Amino acid sequence: MVIKKYLMTPGPTPIPSFVNISMQSLIHHRTDEFREVIRSCRKMLKEYFQTQNEVAIFTSSGTGAMEASISNTMCAGDKIVTVEGGKFGERWGKIARSYGVKNIPLNVEYGDYARPENIKKIIDSEKNIKGVYIQASETSTGTFHPIDEIGIMLKKDYPDILYVVDGITAVGVMNIKPDKWGIDMLISGSQKALMLPPGLSFISVSKKAEGFMERSKLPHYYFDIKGELSKKDTLFTPAITLFLGLQRSLKYILYEEGLENTIKRHDLLARAVRESVKAMGLELLSKKPTDSLTAVISPKDINSSNIVRIMKDECGVQISNGQGDLKGKIFRISHMGYIGKPDIVMAIGALEIALKKLGYHFSLGQGTKSLLEIFSNG
Amino acid sequence: MVIKKYLMTPGPTPIPSFVNISMQSLIHHRTDEFREVIRSCRKMLKEYFQTQNEVAIFTSSGTGAMEASISNTMCAGDKIVTVEGGKFGERWGKIARSYGVKNIPLNVEYGDYARPENIKKIIDSEKNIKGVYIQASETSTGTFHPIDEIGIMLKKDYPDILYVVDGITAVGVMNIKPDKWGIDMLISGSQKALMLPPGLSFISVSKKAEGFMERSKLPHYYFDIKGELSKKDTLFTPAITLFLGLQRSLKYILYEEGLENTIKRHDLLARAVRESVKAMGLELLSKKPTDSLTAVISPKDINSSNIVRIMKDECGVQISNGQGDLKGKIFRISHMGYIGKPDIVMAIGALEIALKKLGYHFSLGQGTKSLLEIFSNG
Repeated sequence: MVIKKYLMTPGPTPIPSFVNISMQSLIHHRTDEFREVIRSCRKMLKEYFQTQNEVAIFTSSGTGAMEASISNTMCAGDKIVTVEGGKFGERWGKIARSYGVKNIPLNVEYGDYARPENIKKIIDSEKNIKGVYIQASETSTGTFHPIDEIGIMLKKDYPDILYVVDGITAVGVMNIKPDKWGIDMLISGSQKALMLPPGLSFISVSKKAEGFMERSKLPHYYFDIKGELSKKDTLFTPAITLFLGLQRSLKYILYEEGLENTIKRHDLLARAVRESVKAMGLELLSKKPTDSLTAVISPKDINSSNIVRIMKDECGVQISNGQGDLKGKIFRISHMGYIGKPDIVMAIGALEIALKKLGYHFSLGQGTKSLLEIFSNG
Repeated sequence: MVIKKYLMTPGPTPIPSFVNISMQSLIHHRTDEFREVIRSCRKMLKEYFQTQNEVAIFTSSGTGAMEASISNTMCAGDKIVTVEGGKFGERWGKIARSYGVKNIPLNVEYGDYARPENIKKIIDSEKNIKGVYIQASETSTGTFHPIDEIGIMLKKDYPDILYVVDGITAVGVMNIKPDKWGIDMLISGSQKALMLPPGLSFISVSKKAEGFMERSKLPHYYFDIKGELSKKDTLFTPAITLFLGLQRSLKYILYEEGLENTIKRHDLLARAVRESVKAMGLELLSKKPTDSLTAVISPKDINSSNIVRIMKDECGVQISNGQGDLKGKIFRISHMGYIGKPDIVMAIGALEIALKKLGYHFSLGQGTKSLLEIFSNG
């Protein structure tokens, strides 16, 4: 059966019609017109990233920029700390190893967050740690690592270590201050808070990161950060239509909604979702939840795959299951990007319908009521 | 002044409105619905590539797939022949060297084409050549290398050498037979004959190429051909909207126009452009022109930058200048992708206007007349 669909996944996120429209007119990429698009995107990206550092743009998924943050800065045999508390944290280790970079993982239980002192311990016990790689928001568990505390600790005690933060589902959602927190490379992607289709990734580069790029000897060609930043256009043919969309979405976030309001909106929506699921007697997976999505532990005896399926089949609401070992055990509702209060009411309503159908004991309407109370006050 | 624009560049090429429309509905990439899109795209790509080999898809420009064809198959210290007769041929050498792969270039004068015997000479004089890397259509000079003869020579005399062909501006334009000609890896991109925005690249993989992939030790993570082919979806978040467009454009080419007709149309348009510029007394750069674009030597005392500029400013027709050393010396008119006879009439008309304004001596209307004669017969 064909029914109306609602996308509530942590990437891709819904695309506003004004962004969609902006991607309809293809222009050639080796023209002054397109160089102006790139210039304005890069300028606005700095504002959006809240940094003075330049931001390079790749035509790839966010993983491409993650790979670049290792292949452009390290040498084979270098040692780095990778914070691994979920699927995306584990990806740091996989990328490092595929380049012969030795990663010392800080293993964090799924749902828990990294403690600065545990990173400090690894750095002190290992010799010559060259970099710390972490997620701001670990999308697989809905956790926000304290990248501020970790950054300030690194800046003070280990000023020579490169600090790389995957902010793919955090930039534009949470209030991140790369320059204050000493983040040398901050990464994001197009299909998250930026309300675009997937296909673009971004990486900011501090002076310290530039130094690492000078000494790095790992091979890379397509993901060449220095090369991209040295050009007024791009090294290779870019995803032109996505750049046009990027320009439009950044204008919306920075100058129409205003970044501060975007972040406040995400904070409100995230609090409302958390309170509403708790009001239904459900438990969050994360000890320190991110504002981009909420990971909820499925009630005892209910496989979360059924919740995800019923919400989709009955209501057209697409949320996400757990990934890897968490599949069937949690479900994840996104509230990132072009999402308003009514979308949240709709999603929690669909969740209540699914839970009722699956025989979960709770007072129907309790979740949405809790939401409406928060929204009436917020 | 704002005027109507006509895109006649060798990538990006014009996007049909039915393709544009197909890219409007974002769906989640970890769903059966999207896996079906991928399945059908991969199946149709094999037909479009005219091969029995599987075709991997990356979210990147074509250069990403070029890099993958080296980083997934070679080892540091391996020797390959790179056919370098233009900007894109030279890119093979740059990619190889960035991975510590030693490339022996076959230097071909710009506009000339590679001779099989010259490749043979290098293979015989060097020891242990592992691969031959070439363009089908060298976009910077408008030249079609005899990839059929070279392939058949390699297949016969050097069956252990990997044969890699960049068909970025050739697949879907010329009649390429990878399996018959022993092409182990054939590469293409979305923004050419496929009538899509840039952002996707493709690479086919023969059994022999699989063997090379097994022994390769070069580092790579994002561009992982084997990983992509092992999955029913994609390793990383793909450019979803471009995949939806790909499905639509492949359906058009294969089942609406028909690949054979697509290739015939390109042949006719290319012949018409070549004849019309010759009728105006102009000379082609290439000794063996490709059917995707025509590179024309600018008349004595006329800088081709002025031709390109006047065509754009006066008529809105965007063609391409020469690249690198050829800038100012040639201009390149594309007739690749969603282009019909009237587009060619319009482009040659605009060229005549520009040449007239620049004081070139010729009989105005001669170019278009020549075109119309060919189209009346074809």
